[in-house]
Order: sequence, then structure tokens, then C-alpha cells
Amino acid sequence: MTFDSMWAAIEPIGRERRTGGYRRFAWTREDHDLREWFAQECRARGLDLTTDRMGNQWAWWGDPDAAVSAGDPGVVVGSHLDSVPDGGAFDGPLGVVSSLAAVDALRARGFQPARPIGVVNFVDEEGARFGVACAGSRVITGVLDSDRARGLRDADGVTMAEAMRTAGRDPATLGPDAETLRRLGAFVELHVEQGRGLVDLGHPVAVATDIWPHGRWRIDFPGVANHAGTTRLEDRRDAMLGFADAVRAARAAASAYGCVATIGKVTVQPNGVNAIPSHVTGWLDARGPAESGVRRTVADVTAVAAEHGATVTERSWTPTTAFDTGLVDRLAGLLGDVPRLGTGAGHDAGILAAAGVPTAMLFVRNPTGVSHSPEEFAEREDCHAGVAALARVVAELAA
Amino acid sequence: MTFDSMWAAIEPIGRERRTGGYRRFAWTREDHDLREWFAQECRARGLDLTTDRMGNQWAWWGDPDAAVSAGDPGVVVGSHLDSVPDGGAFDGPLGVVSSLAAVDALRARGFQPARPIGVVNFVDEEGARFGVACAGSRVITGVLDSDRARGLRDADGVTMAEAMRTAGRDPATLGPDAETLRRLGAFVELHVEQGRGLVDLGHPVAVATDIWPHGRWRIDFPGVANHAGTTRLEDRRDAMLGFADAVRAARAAASAYGCVATIGKVTVQPNGVNAIPSHVTGWLDARGPAESGVRRTVADVTAVAAEHGATVTERSWTPTTAFDTGLVDRLAGLLGDVPRLGTGAGHDAGILAAAGVPTAMLFVRNPTGVSHSPEEFAEREDCHAGVAALARVVAELAA
Repeated sequence: MTFDSMWAAIEPIGRERRTGGYRRFAWTREDHDLREWFAQECRARGLDLTTDRMGNQWAWWGDPDAAVSAGDPGVVVGSHLDSVPDGGAFDGPLGVVSSLAAVDALRARGFQPARPIGVVNFVDEEGARFGVACAGSRVITGVLDSDRARGLRDADGVTMAEAMRTAGRDPATLGPDAETLRRLGAFVELHVEQGRGLVDLGHPVAVATDIWPHGRWRIDFPGVANHAGTTRLEDRRDAMLGFADAVRAARAAASAYGCVATIGKVTVQPNGVNAIPSHVTGWLDARGPAESGVRRTVADVTAVAAEHGATVTERSWTPTTAFDTGLVDRLAGLLGDVPRLGTGAGHDAGILAAAGVPTAMLFVRNPTGVSHSPEEFAEREDCHAGVAALARVVAELAA
Repeated sequence: MTFDSMWAAIEPIGRERRTGGYRRFAWTREDHDLREWFAQECRARGLDLTTDRMGNQWAWWGDPDAAVSAGDPGVVVGSHLDSVPDGGAFDGPLGVVSSLAAVDALRARGFQPARPIGVVNFVDEEGARFGVACAGSRVITGVLDSDRARGLRDADGVTMAEAMRTAGRDPATLGPDAETLRRLGAFVELHVEQGRGLVDLGHPVAVATDIWPHGRWRIDFPGVANHAGTTRLEDRRDAMLGFADAVRAARAAASAYGCVATIGKVTVQPNGVNAIPSHVTGWLDARGPAESGVRRTVADVTAVAAEHGATVTERSWTPTTAFDTGLVDRLAGLLGDVPRLGTGAGHDAGILAAAGVPTAMLFVRNPTGVSHSPEEFAEREDCHAGVAALARVVAELAA
């Protein structure tokens, strides 16, 4: 299977006809089909497939535990196959497909690895269903408590534990997985770029330097349900007004402190045309190059929300994650004159880096800069350049 | 069946255990159960039940068509049984139950009507499911085009035509119904008050004078889906910002022009925590004592929406509806020193009045003033006072 034929095989899975966007959420039918596809590709290559305590899939060329015993653990590449709602085709799958294609490229040239090579498919990276991003890597590193993970609920009230059982997995196994983590001597995640850095610089591939600090906050605005036609303005407690002020405060604060902030998700009770909202919940996503700026942004939004009696709950927080400096330098040297970029997007690579795994990332040019949208794109030529770069990196690290 | 036992019979239908609010939407299981309950109560009283071209239920004591031929058509009382999402128990059902109880009161005293007496249950008054209020009376009066009505969609994309078929009705019959309308010599709708007028005045019952002009507008804000972490503020087109400005503009304009305005319903695409909204739809409800004030409120919101490239679509508009002056005076005289009140709420009575039916309304005191909420309430003593007033009015009009 070439890169192109693998890409064609998964392209229809979870694609909505109406928008062309993808809906590939953790522990759904679509997720199951993608996991089965991954398992079959690994079997076809004779890779040994294992599943860790969270359900992340690891496929090995060589014996990872023998390498651990020898004090020289393996080199892992890969990414994830799930998507945001109406997401693009590249965020996640590009890294998984490129990793399998890189293995093929190494084998085609008769490469014999001195260290085992692994390919990983992380589960639930986007957090689209249960609201916590990178759940797969957070659970195995212990950053996300296993009881909390099991109890997370989707929009239909289904817990992650129930969703896992429905998908045929035992949620009791879920938890930190030191055995899996010690097999990682290095992790390199290839990903489509989610901005216009490479377009502006005229390069197909970059090495990532760090992930911006980022977090998510849930804001609950209280109100009192009442008739929209008969309740005087002075007698109202309309939860939508505070929400509107928070949306504006988030944009103003982000602009003032050089960050980005988004309120992209909202739920309203009862959400009727002629009923004053009795409760509005908004979710704030904030990130920036410096932690202080992000914290000040959230503080400004919190102050505005508090004026409306709203409560702000931190749902996740990830400090600045610098990738392994030695590894970043080595990759940049190997690939020649490639750009080095920071990013505002979280990744499983960031979670592993924070857990002490020597980690780096490669970005592939995105001509629109658009991501998390059906317009997300990478030229096929640039995808092939990404595979070549990844194969070169793996050959160097596993030699 | 007394008022109290009828009230107890329908109280559990469509009540949500969690909130105590009601979800009784057109052409659902709950709606079916309420219609069956109404039909059974009419059968038990020997009333002749007919259903018009829209599915509104009419129960007659006496021959309505003979009265039409004699040039002296009947007297109709009644209201509706559906609710807003998480609505109260009284808005609608109080009028239907009181009408049946008024018939019982007249019979108990041996009253023999000279004109036929009808009791009506209007379908889909709240418009909670398909977004158009008073759909039942609007269709039979021709105010709502039958093709447009059939094509209205609920939140799941189900059309009204499909919903009617699922409920066992043929949507092809739907349309203006002159035969039904000419049977109405007068229509009196009893309704729980949706404000604090009667509380402040210390009366259990009022006669309504007019319904404020009111309408609904759909506002569509365009955006571009993109990654919340990697897209610079200056590269964004975030549909939520325009929505937030419109929420604030609606409140400010309503306050300036002495109206009420509410944006109580919103849908967001894709509604993901880490995705910039590509589309936000808000619904504006605006009303006021004068048409000019409402129009100016909507114009201000439209101007703000237009700055964000949004489009505003009028979904419904009802001018000031004055009830029949002669009828209002007659009722007020009959009931003695009762208050006369205007209202910001739309009613089927308003649609019939605009269609030329001599129409009036009675309001029953609401101690909280709260409506469209589980807190909506009327003391049982005031409900009985409403039944007595309605019986007195019907006896006078049908004598």
C-alpha cells in the first residue's frame, strides 16, 4: 500500500456528505472502522500490534521490550485518526499514514533497524466527544485521572466508560501505563501545519520547537426562565447577556495580551425563541506564546463573567511544552535548512514531552493555513516530502 | 370530572422529572396523549368532536352549521395544550380545562343554550417545534401558507408534513378552513396572565384589550471554521462575535424604545471547543406597545448584524391586535369592576381577531408573574374564579 492508496482507503470514513467535513469521534462506529483499518495495515506489514491500558494502538517492527532491557528503547512515530466536528482529513491521519509509508520506504531500501521502530495511533486526541483533548496520552501518562476519564460525559450523557464498553473495551483497564511509556526512546509526530508559517516561508516541512501554553474553561451563566413577550426588561435575568459580554471580553483580552481566545461552543437552556434563557454554558479556549498572557486573558474573562454571577471552571491546562532541544537540533540538522516553528495547537507529542519522553514534531505545509475545517489541506507533493523527511529521521534515530 | 380532577389527569403528561417543566410539542407522543384526553372528555359530555383541516379539535354542544344557516353562529371558548420547552402547566391547558369546566357549570344549573357552544383545542400554539407560533390558527385563517407550513423543519430536520404523517394525519388536508371559521360567532380564550398586572391590582380575573405587535426574526452570522489555537486573531472570521454584538444591541434598543427583545435561541456550527464557529444562527423575539418601537428595535439589531455580514429574515410579524371593542365592553360590564389589560404575548385569539372573528380574552392571576417556566402558577381559588367568569360570559353570549 502506497501513501496514496492508504489515503484513499480511509478518506470516506466519517465524512459528512453535506459539508465534506469529518466526524470521527472516540469509540464510535467510525473510530472502530479506522482502528480496524490501522490494525490491518500493521498485520499486512508483519508489525506486532499491541494496545495499551487506554486503547492506544502500538505497532512494532522489532522487539520493544528487548530494547528496553538493553537500555536502548525504540523510536516511535505516529499521530491520531479522530477528528473535531466537521474537521479536515489531514489533522491526525496525515501523521499515521505518513508513518506507515515511512516504514515502507525504509524497508524498500533494505534498512535494518538497530533499535525497534513503533507506529502509534492515539485514541481521542481532539476531545471532540468528551471535552478533554489528548485523552489517550493524558491517561497513560497519568495526567488525566482514570476515574475522571471514565466519568466524562458526551453530549448525550454517555460516559467514556460506557462508550468504551459499547466499543468492546473494558474501561477497568484504563490508567497510567509505565510499561508502554518506557518503550519510547524517542517520539516524533508528523502533523499538517495549522497555520501559514510554511506557506509564508516557502518550505514544505518544518521542525516544531514548542507548544504554546493552552487551556479550556467552562463558564456557567445563571438566568431565570420567563416569557420573552411579557417580562419587563427590569424583571429579567437573561443568561445570554453575560455570555455575550464574555465573548467580547475574550476577544479584547486576547488582543491586548498577544494571545488567541475563542468561545466556540455554547449550550442554552431552554433554547426557545420566546423563552428567556435560564442557563447558558460557554467554553473558552485560550492560548498564547507566554503563560502570563494566557492567564491574564482568562482573568479578564472571569472578571466579566463574575459581574453576571457566572462561575468559571478550569477544565484543562497545559503549560508551555518545549520539545527535546537535542532532538530538535538533530532533526533540523539532518533535514538541512528547514524552518523551526512554535504552535498554538496541543498534540499528544506535547503530553509525552511533558512526561519526559524525548519528543519532536514535523509539520507539513498547509496552503490555506486553515485547520479543523473541511478546507484543511496539504498538496500531495508536500505529503510525499513529509514521508521522505520522516523516513530520513527514523533511519537516523533507529540506526 | 371537576376542574380539579381534569387538571390532575393531564398534569403528568410531558412533565420532565429533572426540571418539573413541560415538553409538549406538536405531533409528538405527548401531544397525541393530550389530544386523546381532550377527545375522551368531549365524548364523556356528549359533545360532537370535529377536526379541521389543520388538526385543531372542536367540540360542539348544539349544531354549529344550523346556527350558521340561521345567521347566528356559535360561541367558542378554549385554548391550546402544547408548551414551550420546559414550560409551565398553565399556559394553554388552563383555558382548555376551564372551558370544559364552564360547560359543566352551565349544565349543572340547567342552562339551555340558544346558540351552540364550542370548545377548541388549538394545535401547535407555541411553535416550539417548528418555529412558527399559533400555527394551528394561522393555517386555518390562511395567514400561514400551507406549503410553507408543511415544509417547516424541527431541530432534527423533520418537516411538519412528516411529523403529521407520523402522528397519523394526512398533511394534504392542511389549509385555510372557511367552513370552520364561519361557525364562530364569538371566541373567548381564557389564559393564565403572563405578567404581574393582576397581582399588582389585587384582582383574580381581567379582560384583555389588545395584543402588542410582535414578531420573530432569524439572524444568520457567517464565519469561517478554523483551529482555535493556531489562527491569528486578524485572520479569523468568528461568527460568534457578531452574535454577541446582536444580543447586546437587542437589549439596548428595546430599552431605548420601550419594548422587550430577546435572543433566547442559538445554534452554532460546528460548536466545538477548539473550533472557530463557521456559522451562528440567533432568533430574535421583539414586542412592544407600539409598532414603531418594535420596528426601530429590529432595525437597530439589523444594522449591527449587517456590520458582521449577517442576514436578517422575518419569520413572523403580527401587528397590534385590538380585541372586539363591543365584546370587551360587554364582558367587562358583565364581570363588574375587572381590570382591562394589554399583553405582550401572542395567542390564537389574536390570530382569529385579526381574521375578523369577534374575539376577547380573560386573564387569570399569576402570583409570580412568571410564565414559560416551571414556576408559572395560578392559585386553585383563582382558577375556579376563572371558570365562574367564563361560565358567566358564555351564558350571556349563548343565551
